[in-house]
Amino acid sequence: MSFKARYRARVQWGDCDAARRMFYPNYFRMFDNSTHNLFEQAGLPLPALFAERGLSGLPIVDAQASFKASCGWGDWIEVESHVAEWKRSSFTVRHRMWRDETLLVEGYEVRVWATPHPDDPTRIKAEPIPPDIKARFDAEPAA
Amino acid sequence: MSFKARYRARVQWGDCDAARRMFYPNYFRMFDNSTHNLFEQAGLPLPALFAERGLSGLPIVDAQASFKASCGWGDWIEVESHVAEWKRSSFTVRHRMWRDETLLVEGYEVRVWATPHPDDPTRIKAEPIPPDIKARFDAEPAA
Amino acid sequence: MSFKARYRARVQWGDCDAARRMFYPNYFRMFDNSTHNLFEQAGLPLPALFAERGLSGLPIVDAQASFKASCGWGDWIEVESHVAEWKRSSFTVRHRMWRDETLLVEGYEVRVWATPHPDDPTRIKAEPIPPDIKARFDAEPAA
Amino acid sequence: MSFKARYRARVQWGDCDAARRMFYPNYFRMFDNSTHNLFEQAGLPLPALFAERGLSGLPIVDAQASFKASCGWGDWIEVESHVAEWKRSSFTVRHRMWRDETLLVEGYEVRVWATPHPDDPTRIKAEPIPPDIKARFDAEPAA
Repeated sequence: MSFKARYRARVQWGDCDAARRMFYPNYFRMFDNSTHNLFEQAGLPLPALFAERGLSGLPIVDAQASFKASCGWGDWIEVESHVAEWKRSSFTVRHRMWRDETLLVEGYEVRVWATPHPDDPTRIKAEPIPPDIKARFDAEPAA
Repeated sequence: MSFKARYRARVQWGDCDAARRMFYPNYFRMFDNSTHNLFEQAGLPLPALFAERGLSGLPIVDAQASFKASCGWGDWIEVESHVAEWKRSSFTVRHRMWRDETLLVEGYEVRVWATPHPDDPTRIKAEPIPPDIKARFDAEPAA
Repeated sequence: MSFKARYRARVQWGDCDAARRMFYPNYFRMFDNSTHNLFEQAGLPLPALFAERGLSGLPIVDAQASFKASCGWGDWIEVESHVAEWKRSSFTVRHRMWRDETLLVEGYEVRVWATPHPDDPTRIKAEPIPPDIKARFDAEPAA
Repeated sequence: MSFKARYRARVQWGDCDAARRMFYPNYFRMFDNSTHNLFEQAGLPLPALFAERGLSGLPIVDAQASFKASCGWGDWIEVESHVAEWKRSSFTVRHRMWRDETLLVEGYEVRVWATPHPDDPTRIKAEPIPPDIKARFDAEPAA
């Protein structure tokens, strides 16, 4: 069972559109922020993975969101995220976004563990995710 | 059969992330741009729908994308979009994004026809989509 | 002497560009967030000014920033903002952004108190800023 | 006399804020887009400067804009940009943004020619701008 990380943010004026509700691509931006926060909470900040593990990025292969309720300027929101599934070289992060007790959004991202392509530095290739990386998400990390 | 609109854009420096590829929430931004362009191509620009048809917005209830290939700074991309399904008060827009012959992304948005709530101007409610609106998407519009 | 409000935020992955530093338009986004926070700290959240005081917005007429040091993914930054000058229908907000003891950016925004144009609802016009609004920024508000 | 490049774009729904006008940090995003376009028009696309000239980026040290008129959803805007001044390791790009005959914004960016710091790859340092780079902006490039 993977631990859950929480990412908290406030909806800003510039996050909203002419209908005065959060512009929907910004929910995916919140998902992205929350995935980076999840890795950091697991002790694996992305800049360190770039520098020490040869990671080129965690490119997205699929993303989806169901929008249950909207939010707008000044709302505090919280995204709860965890790794729901590990495959050989990809993984699924599940996200649920709340404003207090109200569920706003449910969704997921599927991402790939990408390293530089050996024959072409401008390209990347999927690599098996190292077991020690996966293990970091197993249990609630010590605070 | 609903007509297909094409939205063309260039990937900008500021659209890309530290991995030098388009930051993934910006693909949904492109979807949003392309849906607005689709309505405009149908003769239904959103500001006119706000002013003349009492529309409050086309809030999103579901969105998904499968990412097949990435794009980066300077790439010209084209999004092909059409209404794939009409329901009573919601509809599905299908998007496919290309760089020349390369399919980059496939996805959809489900949106609602929203009008002001009669009892509370800060809220909105789903309304049946007017038949004349739906009819505007039926055939290729005259150029 | 106008009170100073502090807005605190964390630089996110998606705020950074291919050089892995915050993409510079996002500093102005931080200025905007901080100005909205300043008004809220003064007891004047923008949605209330829209609803109760007939405000149409605080459109910008001038903005400037000097960049002293950069910031990147994961940095916590703090923006300190205050109204440096009131004119009849415009005002200047000064911003200083810090990462701990390091000054990152200094700049300002000049904004106008805008209300709907009496002859054309799609336009706005500058109006004298109400004295009671100005007075709310005079002293440190009670916590 | 430096040549002038023109960058043309359409204001999108998601570029606008709750006041239905372009959110002001997005004008600086347009400036950034236009500077990158200017370099490309000079035959110097940034990815090539990164790969071939050891450039780390063109970090901003100062930016300013005066806003004369607003724009909103669907407006086509054009940014006219040129290098107004070269210094040893920095330069000033002047921008003017138009909607048809209406001047919307005037402003500038001061940027530095930055290369990796010899002692610390995570830092950058200003370097003298190579004369052949400067020369590329002298005259109108052959189409």
